[in-house]
Amino acid sequence: MLPDFIDMKTFRTLLAEAPGPDTQAAADAMARNSQLTKPPGALGRLEDLAIWYGGWRGTGRPEITAPQVIVFAGNHGITAQGVSAFPAEVTEQMVLNFQAGGAAINQMAKAVGARMDVHALDLDRPTADFTQSPAMDEDECLAALQSGWAAVDPKADLLVVGEMGIGNTTSAAAICTALFGGAAADWTGRGTGVDDAGLAIKTHVVTEGVARQSAGARDGLDILARLGGREIAAMAGAIAAARVLRIPVILDGFICCAAAACLQSAEPSALDHAIAGHQSAEIAHEALLRQLDKAPLLSLGLRLGEGSGAALAINILKAAVACHSGMATFAEAGVAEG
Amino acid sequence: MLPDFIDMKTFRTLLAEAPGPDTQAAADAMARNSQLTKPPGALGRLEDLAIWYGGWRGTGRPEITAPQVIVFAGNHGITAQGVSAFPAEVTEQMVLNFQAGGAAINQMAKAVGARMDVHALDLDRPTADFTQSPAMDEDECLAALQSGWAAVDPKADLLVVGEMGIGNTTSAAAICTALFGGAAADWTGRGTGVDDAGLAIKTHVVTEGVARQSAGARDGLDILARLGGREIAAMAGAIAAARVLRIPVILDGFICCAAAACLQSAEPSALDHAIAGHQSAEIAHEALLRQLDKAPLLSLGLRLGEGSGAALAINILKAAVACHSGMATFAEAGVAEG
Repeated sequence: MLPDFIDMKTFRTLLAEAPGPDTQAAADAMARNSQLTKPPGALGRLEDLAIWYGGWRGTGRPEITAPQVIVFAGNHGITAQGVSAFPAEVTEQMVLNFQAGGAAINQMAKAVGARMDVHALDLDRPTADFTQSPAMDEDECLAALQSGWAAVDPKADLLVVGEMGIGNTTSAAAICTALFGGAAADWTGRGTGVDDAGLAIKTHVVTEGVARQSAGARDGLDILARLGGREIAAMAGAIAAARVLRIPVILDGFICCAAAACLQSAEPSALDHAIAGHQSAEIAHEALLRQLDKAPLLSLGLRLGEGSGAALAINILKAAVACHSGMATFAEAGVAEG
Repeated sequence: MLPDFIDMKTFRTLLAEAPGPDTQAAADAMARNSQLTKPPGALGRLEDLAIWYGGWRGTGRPEITAPQVIVFAGNHGITAQGVSAFPAEVTEQMVLNFQAGGAAINQMAKAVGARMDVHALDLDRPTADFTQSPAMDEDECLAALQSGWAAVDPKADLLVVGEMGIGNTTSAAAICTALFGGAAADWTGRGTGVDDAGLAIKTHVVTEGVARQSAGARDGLDILARLGGREIAAMAGAIAAARVLRIPVILDGFICCAAAACLQSAEPSALDHAIAGHQSAEIAHEALLRQLDKAPLLSLGLRLGEGSGAALAINILKAAVACHSGMATFAEAGVAEG
C-alpha cells in the first residue's frame, strides 16, 4: 500500500506525486454541513475541519477511529556545546519513560484513544556537531526518513508525530534560519528552559552552524541532513508517508514544524494534509506557523514536545468530525431552518 | 448534601457562604506538579488547570470521571419584536432534537463521556417582552433558579451548562448593558445570524429594555429577573449549586457568561470554581470574559450555544488532569532533573 524508496530522488518523486484530497468527498461533506441542525457557520472552525478531514479520507461523513501517535527520539552532537538545560542522557531516560507509560504523551494518547509507538533512533550514535561538520550525511538522513516512513500504520486515520531529543530546539532553530532567513536570534528560544547565558550559546551555535552548512543546499531536505537530527528526519518521513497515504496529520510544536518545513521547501503541497495542533510557547513557533501558513487550533502555552500539543488537539478534530457525522439534519429533526 | 432555598434571600446567603477550594489539596497538587517528568512549566496552562481542579475537588491527584452537561431551554417574549433569524418554535423543536440525540451538544457530550440532561422550562409560557414589563417577576425567576439548582447531580465532578432559547442573545445583551454599562450596541451581536436590519432592531430593543428595567435593581439577580429568561436563570442556579458543591464549572459562550455575570454581581466569589471554556464569535463575548476576568481555553469561532464550546473544552481539562495524575515523577522514572 505504501511504496518504498531507496534514495532521496525517489523520496522527492513520491512526495511530488502524492494524491490530493478527494474533491467530491469534500463537496459531499460541505453539502451535509449546510443541512445540520445549527445556524450556518455556528460551529466555526469545527465545520472547516470536518470538511477538510472528509476530503482527505474520501467520504462526506467521516469517522476517526484509529489515530496514531509516534514519538521519535534522537541524540544531538551539538549538546556538547551546552545548548540545553538537561543532559543528553535524558533522551534515553525519557524513552524508557515513554515505554513505561509515564510521560505526558502517554497520558494524552490514552485520553484520546490513540495508538502510541516509540522509535529510538541510534541513541548511541548522536548526530555530528553541525558547527564542525554536517549533522548527518545523505545516507544517515535517508535512513532516518525511512524509519519515520515505515513507522506509519497504513490503517491509521489520523497521525501525530512527536519527538524527544535533548538539543533539538537548537537544531530546529538552525533549520528555520537556513530555510527562512533572518538572524539566528529570531529563531532561537529557550527550549526546555535555558537561562540567558544558555540562550546566548544557542544563538551563537545556530549562527555558526547555518554559516557553515547552508551554502549550496538545494532545498529543505538538504538542510534537514546538514542541520537536523535523526528524530527530526524521521518526523519528516512519517509526515510524508501520511501525505502519500492520505492520512491527515496534526502538527505539534516548533521541532515538528521545522521537520514539516523541510518537506514544504522540497514540495509546496507536502503539508496540504496537515493542520497545526497548537502554538507553542517556544518563541519562534508563531513565526514558523506563519511560514507554513497554518493557524493553530490551541494556544495554551505548552512547550514540551513529545507530540503533546498535537495529541491534545486530536479531541478537537474528533469532536468536529463527531458533530459533522452524528448530528441530525433540519429535515431529519423537523427543525425550521429560519 | 445540597441545601434547598425558598426565597432569593436564602439563595444569596447560600452563595455568599459557599466554601472555597481546599488550599491543602491545591498545595499538594502544586508539589506533585513540580516533580513530574517534564521541564518546569512545559505543560503551560494545563498545569494551572490541574492544580486548580485538584483544589476544588479536595485532592492533590484528581480524576475526572463524571462530567455532567445540562441544557436548559426557555422561550422569550421579546422574539415578537423580530430579534432573531429563527422563529420561536425552534426552541421546542431543538429540545426534541436534544432528546433524540441529534444536536451538536449530543455529539460533544458523547465524545467526552459526559452525562447529558435537558430541561425545558415552561416553553408554552414565554417570559414577558422586557420593553414592556419585567421579563419575570421574582417568583418566576426564583422557580427557574431552583430548577437549575436541582438539576445538578451532586455526584458530578465537572459541570457544563448550556442553553437553547430563540431570542436569548438579546436578553444576554440587555443583562450585560445593565450590569456593565456602555451602549447597547457594545453588547449586541448577530446571535444566530441576523442581518443589519435585525441587528438594528436588537440594539434598539436592548436600549429600550435596559432603560425601562434597570432602575432600582439591587444587583445582578434583580437584573436577571427583569431582563433574563428562564433558561438563563436556570443556568445561574446550576452554576451556584456547583459552587456550593465544589463542582468545577466550565463556562460556555455569551449567554452562559451573562448568567454567570449575574451571580458575580451578587457575590464576587461566585465564579471562583469556574473557568471559561471558549471565546465565542458572538461579538461581545470577549468583553464579557474580560468583565469576568476569565481567559478562554479555546477560540475556534463557535457561536452555537447549547454548551457546545464548554463541552469541547472538557477534554482539555481532562487531559490536564490525566497528565497531572498519571505521569511519572523524576524519581519514579529515573530521569535526571537537569
